[in-house]
Amino acid sequence: MQKTQKIASIYQKLQQQMCRQLEKGDGKATFLEVPWSKELGSGLTCVMKNGNVIEKAGLNFSHVEGEFTPKMEAILGMKAKRYSATGISSIIHPNNPLIPIIHMNVRFFELDNGTCWFGGGIDLTPHYIHKEEAQWFHQTLFDICNKYDDSFYPKYKAWADDYFYLNHRNETRGVGGIFFDRVQPENDTKLDEFLNFTMDLASAYPNIYYDIMDKKRDLKFTPAQKQWQNIRRGRYVEFNLIHDRGTKFGLESGGNTESILVSMPPLAEWEYDYQPEKGSTEYETQQLLKKGINWLNISK
Amino acid sequence: MQKTQKIASIYQKLQQQMCRQLEKGDGKATFLEVPWSKELGSGLTCVMKNGNVIEKAGLNFSHVEGEFTPKMEAILGMKAKRYSATGISSIIHPNNPLIPIIHMNVRFFELDNGTCWFGGGIDLTPHYIHKEEAQWFHQTLFDICNKYDDSFYPKYKAWADDYFYLNHRNETRGVGGIFFDRVQPENDTKLDEFLNFTMDLASAYPNIYYDIMDKKRDLKFTPAQKQWQNIRRGRYVEFNLIHDRGTKFGLESGGNTESILVSMPPLAEWEYDYQPEKGSTEYETQQLLKKGINWLNISK
Repeated sequence: MQKTQKIASIYQKLQQQMCRQLEKGDGKATFLEVPWSKELGSGLTCVMKNGNVIEKAGLNFSHVEGEFTPKMEAILGMKAKRYSATGISSIIHPNNPLIPIIHMNVRFFELDNGTCWFGGGIDLTPHYIHKEEAQWFHQTLFDICNKYDDSFYPKYKAWADDYFYLNHRNETRGVGGIFFDRVQPENDTKLDEFLNFTMDLASAYPNIYYDIMDKKRDLKFTPAQKQWQNIRRGRYVEFNLIHDRGTKFGLESGGNTESILVSMPPLAEWEYDYQPEKGSTEYETQQLLKKGINWLNISK
Repeated sequence: MQKTQKIASIYQKLQQQMCRQLEKGDGKATFLEVPWSKELGSGLTCVMKNGNVIEKAGLNFSHVEGEFTPKMEAILGMKAKRYSATGISSIIHPNNPLIPIIHMNVRFFELDNGTCWFGGGIDLTPHYIHKEEAQWFHQTLFDICNKYDDSFYPKYKAWADDYFYLNHRNETRGVGGIFFDRVQPENDTKLDEFLNFTMDLASAYPNIYYDIMDKKRDLKFTPAQKQWQNIRRGRYVEFNLIHDRGTKFGLESGGNTESILVSMPPLAEWEYDYQPEKGSTEYETQQLLKKGINWLNISK
Protein backbone atom coordinates (compact mmCIF):
# COMPACT_ATOMS: atom_id res chain seq x y z
CA MET A 1 0.00 0.00 0.00
CA GLN A 2 1.16 3.48 -0.91
CA LYS A 3 1.60 5.18 2.44
CA THR A 4 3.37 2.16 3.90
CA GLN A 5 5.63 2.03 0.85
CA LYS A 6 6.72 5.62 1.34
CA ILE A 7 7.25 5.28 5.09
CA ALA A 8 9.10 1.98 4.67
CA SER A 9 11.69 3.61 2.46
CA ILE A 10 12.19 6.38 5.03
CA TYR A 11 12.49 3.90 7.91
CA GLN A 12 14.89 1.77 5.93
CA LYS A 13 17.33 4.66 5.49
CA LEU A 14 16.92 5.64 9.12
CA GLN A 15 17.89 2.14 10.22
CA GLN A 16 21.28 2.55 8.57
CA GLN A 17 21.96 5.87 10.29
CA MET A 18 20.98 4.38 13.64
CA CYS A 19 23.32 1.43 13.16
CA ARG A 20 26.25 3.71 12.31
CA GLN A 21 25.65 5.88 15.37
CA LEU A 22 25.50 2.88 17.70
CA GLU A 23 28.68 1.44 16.16
CA LYS A 24 30.41 4.75 16.76
CA GLY A 25 29.20 4.73 20.37
CA ASP A 26 30.33 1.18 21.02
CA GLY A 27 33.69 1.76 19.38
CA LYS A 28 34.46 -1.90 18.60
CA ALA A 29 31.69 -4.11 17.22
CA THR A 30 29.80 -3.57 13.99
CA PHE A 31 26.35 -4.72 12.99
CA LEU A 32 26.00 -7.93 11.02
CA GLU A 33 23.34 -7.26 8.38
CA VAL A 34 21.06 -10.14 7.48
CA PRO A 35 18.46 -9.44 4.79
CA TRP A 36 15.49 -11.78 4.84
CA SER A 37 12.42 -12.28 2.73
CA LYS A 38 9.40 -14.47 3.26
CA GLU A 39 6.04 -14.76 1.58
CA LEU A 40 4.84 -12.03 3.93
CA GLY A 41 7.49 -9.47 3.07
CA SER A 42 11.07 -8.67 3.73
CA GLY A 43 13.39 -6.96 6.14
CA LEU A 44 16.88 -6.35 7.32
CA THR A 45 17.96 -7.78 10.66
CA CYS A 46 21.00 -6.02 12.08
CA VAL A 47 22.73 -7.79 14.93
CA MET A 48 25.70 -6.71 17.02
CA LYS A 49 27.49 -8.79 19.60
CA ASN A 50 30.46 -8.67 21.96
CA GLY A 51 31.23 -5.00 21.56
CA ASN A 52 33.07 -2.81 24.04
CA VAL A 53 29.80 -1.92 25.75
CA ILE A 54 27.06 -3.69 23.80
CA GLU A 55 26.92 -7.41 24.52
CA LYS A 56 24.02 -8.00 22.15
CA ALA A 57 21.84 -5.68 20.11
CA GLY A 58 19.21 -6.14 17.47
CA LEU A 59 18.03 -3.36 15.17
CA ASN A 60 15.43 -4.60 12.73
CA PHE A 61 13.62 -3.12 9.83
CA SER A 62 10.70 -4.89 8.18
CA HIS A 63 8.07 -4.25 5.57
CA VAL A 64 5.30 -6.80 5.24
CA GLU A 65 1.93 -7.14 3.59
CA GLY A 66 -0.66 -9.85 4.04
CA GLU A 67 -4.19 -11.01 4.46
CA PHE A 68 -6.15 -9.28 7.22
CA THR A 69 -7.21 -12.41 9.08
CA PRO A 70 -10.39 -12.94 11.13
CA LYS A 71 -8.16 -13.01 14.22
CA MET A 72 -6.78 -9.55 13.40
CA GLU A 73 -10.34 -8.36 12.75
CA ALA A 74 -11.37 -9.58 16.19
CA ILE A 75 -8.38 -7.99 17.94
CA LEU A 76 -8.60 -4.66 16.13
CA GLY A 77 -12.36 -4.47 15.76
CA MET A 78 -12.11 -3.51 12.08
CA LYS A 79 -12.87 -5.14 8.77
CA ALA A 80 -10.44 -5.18 5.85
CA LYS A 81 -9.01 -7.57 3.30
CA ARG A 82 -5.34 -6.81 3.44
CA TYR A 83 -2.88 -4.98 5.65
CA SER A 84 0.62 -3.70 5.27
CA ALA A 85 3.05 -2.74 7.97
CA THR A 86 6.53 -1.35 8.35
CA GLY A 87 8.66 -0.57 11.33
CA ILE A 88 11.99 -0.33 13.07
CA SER A 89 12.50 -2.17 16.29
CA SER A 90 15.55 -2.39 18.50
CA ILE A 91 16.82 -3.65 21.84
CA ILE A 92 20.27 -3.29 23.32
CA HIS A 93 21.69 -5.50 26.08
CA PRO A 94 24.93 -4.10 27.50
CA ASN A 95 27.59 -6.22 29.15
CA ASN A 96 28.00 -3.88 32.13
CA PRO A 97 25.11 -4.25 34.63
CA LEU A 98 25.43 -0.58 35.56
CA ILE A 99 24.37 0.35 32.02
CA PRO A 100 20.64 0.00 31.22
CA ILE A 101 18.86 -2.09 28.62
CA ILE A 102 17.07 0.11 26.08
CA HIS A 103 14.29 -0.56 23.62
CA MET A 104 12.74 1.41 20.79
CA ASN A 105 10.08 0.68 18.22
CA VAL A 106 8.23 2.73 15.63
CA ARG A 107 5.73 1.16 13.29
CA PHE A 108 3.10 2.07 10.74
CA PHE A 109 0.11 -0.08 9.93
CA GLU A 110 -2.21 0.39 6.93
CA LEU A 111 -5.39 -1.40 5.84
CA ASP A 112 -6.78 -1.58 2.34
CA ASN A 113 -9.94 0.13 3.63
CA GLY A 114 -7.97 3.37 4.05
CA THR A 115 -7.40 3.21 7.81
CA CYS A 116 -3.83 3.63 9.02
CA TRP A 117 -2.04 4.23 12.29
CA PHE A 118 1.27 4.59 14.08
CA GLY A 119 2.53 2.78 17.13
CA GLY A 120 5.77 2.75 19.02
CA GLY A 121 7.73 3.87 22.00
CA ILE A 122 11.03 4.00 23.80
CA ASP A 123 11.69 2.64 27.26
CA LEU A 124 14.68 2.22 29.50
CA THR A 125 15.29 -0.82 31.71
CA PRO A 126 18.16 -0.20 34.10
CA HIS A 127 19.43 -3.20 36.06
CA TYR A 128 20.27 -0.53 38.63
CA ILE A 129 18.06 2.55 38.57
CA HIS A 130 19.99 5.81 38.76
CA LYS A 131 17.51 8.60 39.36
CA GLU A 132 19.52 11.25 37.50
CA GLU A 133 19.74 9.04 34.45
CA ALA A 134 16.00 8.26 34.54
CA GLN A 135 15.22 11.96 34.90
CA TRP A 136 17.47 12.92 31.99
CA PHE A 137 15.99 10.13 29.86
CA HIS A 138 12.43 11.29 30.52
CA GLN A 139 13.41 14.93 29.97
CA THR A 140 14.80 13.98 26.57
CA LEU A 141 11.55 12.27 25.62
CA PHE A 142 9.53 15.15 27.06
CA ASP A 143 11.43 17.61 24.84
CA ILE A 144 10.87 15.55 21.70
CA CYS A 145 7.17 15.14 22.48
CA ASN A 146 6.71 18.86 23.12
CA LYS A 147 8.08 19.76 19.71
CA TYR A 148 4.86 18.24 18.39
CA ASP A 149 2.12 18.33 21.01
CA ASP A 150 2.06 19.18 24.74
CA SER A 151 -0.36 16.35 25.35
CA PHE A 152 1.97 13.67 23.98
CA TYR A 153 4.35 13.24 26.89
CA PRO A 154 1.82 12.91 29.75
CA LYS A 155 -0.42 10.66 27.66
CA TYR A 156 2.30 8.44 26.26
CA LYS A 157 4.27 8.31 29.51
CA ALA A 158 1.24 6.97 31.36
CA TRP A 159 0.62 4.51 28.52
CA ALA A 160 4.20 3.24 28.85
CA ASP A 161 3.69 2.72 32.60
CA ASP A 162 0.67 0.56 31.81
CA TYR A 163 2.16 -1.27 28.87
CA PHE A 164 5.67 -2.07 30.13
CA TYR A 165 4.24 -3.78 33.17
CA LEU A 166 4.56 -7.35 34.42
CA ASN A 167 1.19 -8.11 36.01
CA HIS A 168 2.34 -11.43 37.40
CA ARG A 169 5.24 -9.69 39.18
CA ASN A 170 3.44 -6.47 40.10
CA GLU A 171 6.35 -4.52 38.75
CA THR A 172 7.20 -2.27 35.84
CA ARG A 173 9.85 -3.47 33.40
CA GLY A 174 12.09 -0.50 34.20
CA VAL A 175 11.69 3.27 34.42
CA GLY A 176 9.34 3.33 31.45
CA GLY A 177 9.44 6.02 28.81
CA ILE A 178 6.72 6.60 26.24
CA PHE A 179 4.40 4.22 24.41
CA PHE A 180 1.57 4.75 21.94
CA ASP A 181 -0.46 2.54 19.68
CA ARG A 182 -3.14 2.92 17.01
CA VAL A 183 -2.65 6.66 16.67
CA GLN A 184 -4.69 7.43 13.55
CA PRO A 185 -3.72 10.69 11.81
CA GLU A 186 -6.79 12.73 10.81
CA ASN A 187 -5.33 13.86 7.49
CA ASP A 188 -2.17 13.81 5.39
CA THR A 189 -0.63 16.79 7.18
CA LYS A 190 -1.12 15.12 10.51
CA LEU A 191 0.28 11.91 9.08
CA ASP A 192 3.45 13.69 7.99
CA GLU A 193 3.71 15.34 11.38
CA PHE A 194 3.40 12.09 13.24
CA LEU A 195 5.83 10.44 10.85
CA ASN A 196 8.32 13.16 11.75
CA PHE A 197 7.67 12.49 15.42
CA THR A 198 8.47 8.79 14.99
CA MET A 199 11.58 9.68 12.98
CA ASP A 200 12.72 12.00 15.76
CA LEU A 201 12.23 9.22 18.28
CA ALA A 202 14.13 6.73 16.17
CA SER A 203 16.97 9.20 15.64
CA ALA A 204 17.10 10.10 19.33
CA TYR A 205 17.42 6.46 20.34
CA PRO A 206 21.06 5.85 19.34
CA ASN A 207 21.99 9.31 20.58
CA ILE A 208 20.51 8.62 24.00
CA TYR A 209 22.42 5.38 24.20
CA TYR A 210 25.56 7.05 22.89
CA ASP A 211 25.48 9.47 25.82
CA ILE A 212 24.83 6.70 28.35
CA MET A 213 27.68 4.59 26.96
CA ASP A 214 29.99 7.58 26.90
CA LYS A 215 29.35 8.31 30.56
CA LYS A 216 29.37 4.79 31.98
CA ARG A 217 31.57 2.63 29.79
CA ASP A 218 34.44 2.45 32.29
CA LEU A 219 32.42 1.79 35.44
CA LYS A 220 33.67 -1.28 37.32
CA PHE A 221 31.21 -3.97 38.37
CA THR A 222 31.21 -7.09 40.54
CA PRO A 223 30.11 -10.72 39.92
CA ALA A 224 27.19 -10.11 42.31
CA GLN A 225 26.04 -7.20 40.14
CA LYS A 226 26.39 -9.44 37.10
CA GLN A 227 24.10 -12.00 38.76
CA TRP A 228 21.49 -9.35 39.53
CA GLN A 229 21.70 -8.29 35.88
CA ASN A 230 20.90 -11.86 34.82
CA ILE A 231 17.92 -11.98 37.14
CA ARG A 232 16.62 -8.69 35.73
CA ARG A 233 17.21 -10.06 32.25
CA GLY A 234 14.99 -12.98 33.23
CA ARG A 235 12.20 -10.48 33.85
CA TYR A 236 12.90 -8.98 30.44
CA VAL A 237 12.41 -12.41 28.88
CA GLU A 238 9.14 -12.82 30.77
CA PHE A 239 7.87 -9.49 29.46
CA ASN A 240 8.87 -10.18 25.88
CA LEU A 241 7.40 -13.67 25.68
CA ILE A 242 4.26 -13.08 27.75
CA HIS A 243 3.28 -9.47 27.02
CA ASP A 244 5.13 -7.83 24.16
CA ARG A 245 2.66 -7.16 21.33
CA GLY A 246 5.30 -7.03 18.62
CA THR A 247 6.75 -10.38 19.63
CA LYS A 248 3.32 -12.00 19.84
CA PHE A 249 2.14 -10.55 16.54
CA GLY A 250 5.41 -11.49 14.87
CA LEU A 251 5.50 -15.09 16.06
CA GLU A 252 1.80 -15.69 15.45
CA SER A 253 1.74 -14.13 11.98
CA GLY A 254 4.60 -16.32 10.83
CA GLY A 255 7.34 -13.71 11.03
CA ASN A 256 11.06 -14.36 11.09
CA THR A 257 11.65 -16.06 14.47
CA GLU A 258 15.36 -15.34 14.78
CA SER A 259 14.81 -11.66 13.92
CA ILE A 260 11.97 -11.35 16.40
CA LEU A 261 13.79 -13.11 19.22
CA VAL A 262 17.02 -11.20 18.72
CA SER A 263 15.48 -9.15 21.56
CA MET A 264 16.25 -11.95 24.02
CA PRO A 265 19.17 -11.24 26.36
CA PRO A 266 22.38 -13.19 25.81
CA LEU A 267 21.96 -14.82 29.22
CA ALA A 268 19.19 -14.87 31.81
CA GLU A 269 18.82 -16.37 35.23
CA TRP A 270 15.94 -17.56 37.39
CA GLU A 271 16.32 -18.27 41.07
CA TYR A 272 13.32 -19.31 43.11
CA ASP A 273 11.95 -16.42 45.17
CA TYR A 274 15.10 -14.33 44.90
CA GLN A 275 14.87 -11.34 47.22
CA PRO A 276 17.59 -8.69 47.38
CA GLU A 277 18.75 -7.71 50.84
CA LYS A 278 16.80 -4.82 52.37
CA GLY A 279 18.59 -1.52 51.88
CA SER A 280 20.86 -2.82 49.10
CA THR A 281 21.04 -0.99 45.77
CA GLU A 282 19.25 -3.98 44.21
CA TYR A 283 16.47 -3.58 46.75
CA GLU A 284 16.24 0.14 46.03
CA THR A 285 15.88 -0.55 42.32
CA GLN A 286 13.12 -3.05 43.02
CA GLN A 287 11.27 -0.44 45.09
CA LEU A 288 11.28 1.92 42.10
CA LEU A 289 9.67 -0.56 39.68
CA LYS A 290 6.30 1.13 40.08
CA LYS A 291 3.77 2.87 37.88
CA GLY A 292 3.07 6.56 38.16
CA ILE A 293 6.48 7.83 39.24
CA ASN A 294 7.07 11.36 37.98
CA TRP A 295 10.62 10.86 36.75
CA LEU A 296 10.85 14.44 35.51
CA ASN A 297 10.74 15.66 39.09
CA ILE A 298 12.14 12.73 41.01
CA SER A 299 14.04 13.81 44.14
CA LYS A 300 17.57 12.49 44.21
CA MET B 1 -15.91 -29.98 45.72
CA GLN B 2 -15.94 -33.54 46.95
CA LYS B 3 -14.06 -35.42 44.27
CA THR B 4 -11.35 -32.79 44.11
CA GLN B 5 -11.06 -32.90 47.88
CA LYS B 6 -10.46 -36.64 47.89
CA ILE B 7 -7.97 -36.54 45.01
CA ALA B 8 -6.15 -33.57 46.50
CA SER B 9 -5.42 -35.50 49.69
CA ILE B 10 -4.06 -38.41 47.62
CA TYR B 11 -1.90 -36.14 45.47
CA GLN B 12 -0.61 -34.33 48.52
CA LYS B 13 0.72 -37.56 50.05
CA LEU B 14 2.16 -38.62 46.72
CA GLN B 15 4.08 -35.36 46.47
CA GLN B 16 5.97 -36.23 49.65
CA GLN B 17 6.94 -39.69 48.39
CA MET B 18 8.12 -38.21 45.11
CA CYS B 19 10.29 -35.66 46.92
CA ARG B 20 11.92 -38.35 49.08
CA GLN B 21 12.70 -40.53 46.08
CA LEU B 22 14.28 -37.63 44.16
CA GLU B 23 16.33 -36.66 47.22
CA LYS B 24 17.57 -40.24 47.47
CA GLY B 25 18.49 -40.17 43.80
CA ASP B 26 20.33 -36.89 44.01
CA GLY B 27 22.17 -37.91 47.15
CA LYS B 28 22.95 -34.41 48.39
CA ALA B 29 20.28 -31.73 48.20
CA THR B 30 16.90 -31.80 49.89
CA PHE B 31 13.67 -30.06 48.98
CA LEU B 32 12.85 -26.76 50.60
CA GLU B 33 9.13 -26.88 51.38
CA VAL B 34 7.21 -23.63 51.09
CA PRO B 35 3.51 -23.79 51.93
CA TRP B 36 1.43 -21.01 50.43
CA SER B 37 -2.18 -19.96 50.60
CA LYS B 38 -4.07 -17.33 48.68
CA GLU B 39 -7.71 -16.44 48.32
CA LEU B 40 -7.89 -19.03 45.55
CA GLY B 41 -6.55 -21.94 47.58
CA SER B 42 -3.32 -23.34 48.86
CA GLY B 43 -0.39 -25.48 47.97
CA LEU B 44 3.05 -26.69 48.82
CA THR B 45 5.95 -25.60 46.62
CA CYS B 46 8.95 -27.88 46.96
CA VAL B 47 12.19 -26.54 45.55
CA MET B 48 15.61 -28.17 45.32
CA LYS B 49 18.79 -26.52 44.19
CA ASN B 50 22.49 -27.22 43.77
CA GLY B 51 22.34 -30.96 44.32
CA ASN B 52 24.85 -33.53 43.10
CA VAL B 53 22.90 -33.95 39.88
CA ILE B 54 19.87 -31.69 40.15
CA GLU B 55 20.72 -28.02 39.64
CA LYS B 56 17.14 -26.87 40.14
CA ALA B 57 13.87 -28.71 40.60
CA GLY B 58 10.35 -27.71 41.46
CA LEU B 59 7.70 -30.16 42.62
CA ASN B 60 4.45 -28.41 43.37
CA PHE B 61 1.15 -29.47 44.78
CA SER B 62 -1.87 -27.20 44.71
CA HIS B 63 -5.55 -27.29 45.50
CA VAL B 64 -7.63 -24.32 44.43
CA GLU B 65 -11.26 -23.38 44.05
CA GLY B 66 -12.75 -20.31 42.44
CA GLU B 67 -15.27 -18.62 40.26
CA PHE B 68 -15.71 -20.13 36.79
CA THR B 69 -15.12 -16.95 34.81
CA PRO B 70 -16.60 -16.01 31.41
CA LYS B 71 -13.10 -16.43 29.99
CA MET B 72 -12.92 -20.04 31.23
CA GLU B 73 -16.42 -20.62 29.84
CA ALA B 74 -15.24 -19.39 26.46
CA ILE B 75 -12.08 -21.51 26.49
CA LEU B 76 -13.73 -24.69 27.75
CA GLY B 77 -17.11 -24.25 26.05
CA MET B 78 -18.99 -25.09 29.25
CA LYS B 79 -21.14 -23.22 31.72
CA ALA B 80 -20.66 -23.42 35.48
CA LYS B 81 -20.47 -21.19 38.51
CA ARG B 82 -17.45 -22.55 40.31
CA TYR B 83 -14.51 -24.83 39.65
CA SER B 84 -12.01 -26.64 41.77
CA ALA B 85 -8.68 -28.09 40.73
CA THR B 86 -5.82 -30.02 42.20
CA GLY B 87 -2.57 -31.26 40.75
CA ILE B 88 1.08 -32.10 41.05
CA SER B 89 3.52 -30.50 38.68
CA SER B 90 7.27 -30.87 38.45
CA ILE B 91 10.30 -29.98 36.36
CA ILE B 92 13.91 -30.97 36.93
CA HIS B 93 16.90 -29.13 35.46
CA PRO B 94 20.12 -31.09 35.90
CA ASN B 95 23.55 -29.52 36.03
CA ASN B 96 25.11 -32.02 33.62
CA PRO B 97 24.08 -31.29 30.00
CA LEU B 98 24.27 -35.01 29.20
CA ILE B 99 21.35 -35.58 31.58
CA PRO B 100 17.89 -34.62 30.29
CA ILE B 101 15.35 -32.15 31.65
CA ILE B 102 12.18 -33.92 32.73
CA HIS B 103 8.65 -32.70 33.36
CA MET B 104 5.54 -34.27 34.83
CA ASN B 105 2.08 -33.02 35.62
CA VAL B 106 -1.16 -34.63 36.74
CA ARG B 107 -4.23 -32.59 37.46
CA PHE B 108 -7.92 -32.95 38.17
CA PHE B 109 -10.52 -30.32 37.37
CA GLU B 110 -14.11 -30.28 38.64
CA LEU B 111 -17.06 -27.97 37.97
CA ASP B 112 -20.05 -27.42 40.20
CA ASN B 113 -22.25 -28.66 37.36
CA GLY B 114 -20.90 -32.20 37.89
CA THR B 115 -18.41 -32.28 35.02
CA CYS B 116 -14.87 -33.32 35.86
CA TRP B 117 -11.72 -34.34 34.02
CA PHE B 118 -8.07 -35.29 34.25
CA GLY B 119 -5.12 -33.85 32.44
CA GLY B 120 -1.42 -34.41 32.57
CA GLY B 121 1.63 -35.96 31.03
CA ILE B 122 5.32 -36.69 31.26
CA ASP B 123 7.92 -35.60 28.76
CA LEU B 124 11.67 -35.77 28.47
CA THR B 125 13.83 -32.97 27.07
CA PRO B 126 17.40 -34.14 26.55
CA HIS B 127 19.98 -31.50 25.72
CA TYR B 128 21.62 -34.36 23.85
CA ILE B 129 19.26 -37.05 22.58
CA HIS B 130 20.45 -40.58 23.29
CA LYS B 131 18.27 -42.96 21.34
CA GLU B 132 18.53 -45.82 23.85
CA GLU B 133 17.43 -43.53 26.65
CA ALA B 134 14.50 -42.16 24.61
CA GLN B 135 13.45 -45.70 23.71
CA TRP B 136 13.62 -46.88 27.33
CA PHE B 137 11.68 -43.79 28.47
CA HIS B 138 8.91 -44.40 25.95
CA GLN B 139 8.85 -48.12 26.77
CA THR B 140 8.35 -47.27 30.44
CA LEU B 141 5.41 -45.01 29.59
CA PHE B 142 4.03 -47.60 27.16
CA ASP B 143 4.04 -50.23 29.92
CA ILE B 144 2.23 -47.96 32.39
CA CYS B 145 -0.37 -47.00 29.77
CA ASN B 146 -1.00 -50.63 28.81
CA LYS B 147 -1.80 -51.59 32.39
CA TYR B 148 -4.94 -49.50 31.85
CA ASP B 149 -5.85 -49.29 28.18
CA ASP B 150 -4.05 -50.28 24.97
CA SER B 151 -5.29 -47.13 23.29
CA PHE B 152 -3.65 -44.80 25.83
CA TYR B 153 -0.05 -44.88 24.64
CA PRO B 154 -0.58 -44.27 20.90
CA LYS B 155 -3.19 -41.62 21.59
CA TYR B 156 -1.31 -39.78 24.34
CA LYS B 157 2.07 -40.12 22.63
CA ALA B 158 0.74 -38.38 19.52
CA TRP B 159 -0.89 -35.76 21.72
CA ALA B 160 2.46 -35.08 23.39
CA ASP B 161 4.11 -34.65 19.98
CA ASP B 162 1.52 -32.00 19.14
CA TYR B 163 1.49 -30.30 22.51
CA PHE B 164 5.20 -30.13 23.35
CA TYR B 165 5.89 -28.35 20.10
CA LEU B 166 7.38 -24.94 19.39
CA ASN B 167 5.56 -23.73 16.28
CA HIS B 168 7.79 -20.71 15.88
CA ARG B 169 10.86 -22.97 15.84
CA ASN B 170 9.35 -25.90 13.93
CA GLU B 171 10.75 -28.22 16.54
CA THR B 172 9.55 -30.44 19.36
CA ARG B 173 10.63 -29.58 22.88
CA GLY B 174 12.45 -32.89 23.24
CA VAL B 175 11.64 -36.56 22.67
CA GLY B 176 8.09 -36.10 23.94
CA GLY B 177 6.34 -38.65 26.09
CA ILE B 178 2.63 -38.67 26.78
CA PHE B 179 0.09 -35.88 27.20
CA PHE B 180 -3.67 -35.85 27.76
CA ASP B 181 -6.23 -33.24 28.69
CA ARG B 182 -9.93 -33.09 29.50
CA VAL B 183 -10.29 -36.83 29.87
CA GLN B 184 -13.77 -37.13 31.39
CA PRO B 185 -14.40 -40.42 33.22
CA GLU B 186 -17.80 -41.91 32.33
CA ASN B 187 -18.52 -43.12 35.85
CA ASP B 188 -17.01 -43.47 39.32
CA THR B 189 -15.24 -46.74 38.49
CA LYS B 190 -13.60 -45.14 35.48
CA LEU B 191 -12.71 -42.15 37.59
CA ASP B 192 -10.92 -44.35 40.12
CA GLU B 193 -9.17 -46.18 37.33
CA PHE B 194 -7.92 -42.99 35.73
CA LEU B 195 -6.91 -41.65 39.12
CA ASN B 196 -4.78 -44.77 39.56
CA PHE B 197 -3.27 -44.16 36.13
CA THR B 198 -2.26 -40.63 37.10
CA MET B 199 -0.88 -41.91 40.42
CA ASP B 200 1.18 -44.50 38.56
CA LEU B 201 2.56 -41.79 36.30
CA ALA B 202 3.40 -39.54 39.22
CA SER B 203 5.10 -42.41 41.06
CA ALA B 204 7.03 -43.48 37.98
CA TYR B 205 8.40 -39.99 37.45
CA PRO B 206 11.00 -39.91 40.27
CA ASN B 207 11.89 -43.55 39.55
CA ILE B 208 12.58 -42.77 35.90
CA TYR B 209 14.79 -39.90 36.90
CA TYR B 210 16.43 -41.99 39.62
CA ASP B 211 17.55 -44.49 36.98
CA ILE B 212 18.79 -41.77 34.63
CA MET B 213 20.76 -40.08 37.41
CA ASP B 214 22.16 -43.40 38.55
CA LYS B 215 23.47 -44.17 35.10
CA LYS B 216 24.79 -40.78 34.05
CA ARG B 217 25.81 -38.89 37.17
CA ASP B 218 29.56 -39.29 36.61
CA LEU B 219 29.66 -38.45 32.91
CA LYS B 220 32.16 -35.71 32.15
CA PHE B 221 31.12 -32.71 30.08
CA THR B 222 32.76 -29.73 28.39
CA PRO B 223 32.10 -25.95 28.50
CA ALA B 224 30.85 -26.20 24.90
CA GLN B 225 28.28 -28.80 25.97
CA LYS B 226 27.29 -26.50 28.84
CA GLN B 227 26.69 -23.69 26.34
CA TRP B 228 24.50 -25.90 24.18
CA GLN B 229 22.56 -26.82 27.32
CA ASN B 230 21.92 -23.13 27.96
CA ILE B 231 20.68 -22.64 24.42
CA ARG B 232 18.33 -25.62 24.75
CA ARG B 233 17.18 -24.19 28.08
CA GLY B 234 16.32 -21.00 26.20
CA ARG B 235 13.93 -23.06 24.08
CA TYR B 236 12.47 -24.49 27.28
CA VAL B 237 11.78 -20.94 28.48
CA GLU B 238 10.13 -20.12 25.17
CA PHE B 239 7.85 -23.13 25.43
CA ASN B 240 6.88 -22.45 29.03
CA LEU B 241 6.11 -18.76 28.58
CA ILE B 242 4.51 -18.93 25.14
CA HIS B 243 2.73 -22.29 25.06
CA ASP B 244 2.48 -24.09 28.40
CA ARG B 245 -1.19 -24.22 29.44
CA GLY B 246 -0.47 -24.65 33.14
CA THR B 247 1.82 -21.62 33.20
CA LYS B 248 -0.67 -19.49 31.28
CA PHE B 249 -3.64 -20.59 33.37
CA GLY B 250 -1.67 -20.11 36.57
CA LEU B 251 -0.38 -16.64 35.78
CA GLU B 252 -3.69 -15.42 34.36
CA SER B 253 -5.83 -16.78 37.19
CA GLY B 254 -3.71 -15.01 39.79
CA GLY B 255 -1.74 -18.05 40.95
CA ASN B 256 1.49 -18.00 42.90
CA THR B 257 4.04 -16.57 40.44
CA GLU B 258 7.18 -17.90 42.13
CA SER B 259 5.68 -21.39 42.37
CA ILE B 260 4.60 -21.36 38.74
CA LEU B 261 7.90 -20.03 37.44
CA VAL B 262 10.01 -22.42 39.48
CA SER B 263 9.91 -24.32 36.17
CA MET B 264 12.31 -21.78 34.63
CA PRO B 265 15.86 -23.08 34.15
CA PRO B 266 18.54 -21.63 36.43
CA LEU B 267 20.28 -20.12 33.41
CA ALA B 268 19.36 -19.74 29.73
CA GLU B 269 21.12 -18.36 26.71
CA TRP B 270 20.06 -16.82 23.42
CA GLU B 271 22.46 -16.37 20.55
CA TYR B 272 21.20 -14.95 17.26
CA ASP B 273 20.69 -17.68 14.67
CA TYR B 274 22.85 -20.23 16.48
CA GLN B 275 23.42 -23.26 14.24
CA PRO B 276 25.34 -26.30 15.43
CA GLU B 277 28.00 -27.62 13.07
CA LYS B 278 26.72 -30.21 10.62
CA GLY B 279 27.44 -33.72 11.81
CA SER B 280 28.05 -32.67 15.44
CA THR B 281 26.14 -34.36 18.26
CA GLU B 282 24.29 -31.06 18.78
CA TYR B 283 23.26 -31.13 15.11
CA GLU B 284 22.10 -34.73 15.43
CA THR B 285 19.94 -33.81 18.40
CA GLN B 286 18.41 -30.94 16.45
CA GLN B 287 17.56 -33.31 13.59
CA LEU B 288 15.60 -35.50 16.01
CA LEU B 289 13.36 -32.69 17.31
CA LYS B 290 10.51 -33.83 15.10
CA LYS B 291 6.96 -35.04 15.55
CA GLY B 292 5.94 -38.59 14.78
CA ILE B 293 9.15 -40.43 15.60
CA ASN B 294 8.40 -43.96 16.80
CA TRP B 295 10.78 -43.97 19.76
CA LEU B 296 9.75 -47.48 20.77
CA ASN B 297 11.37 -48.85 17.62
CA ILE B 298 14.01 -46.26 16.88
CA SER B 299 17.08 -47.75 15.19
CA LYS B 300 20.25 -46.99 17.11
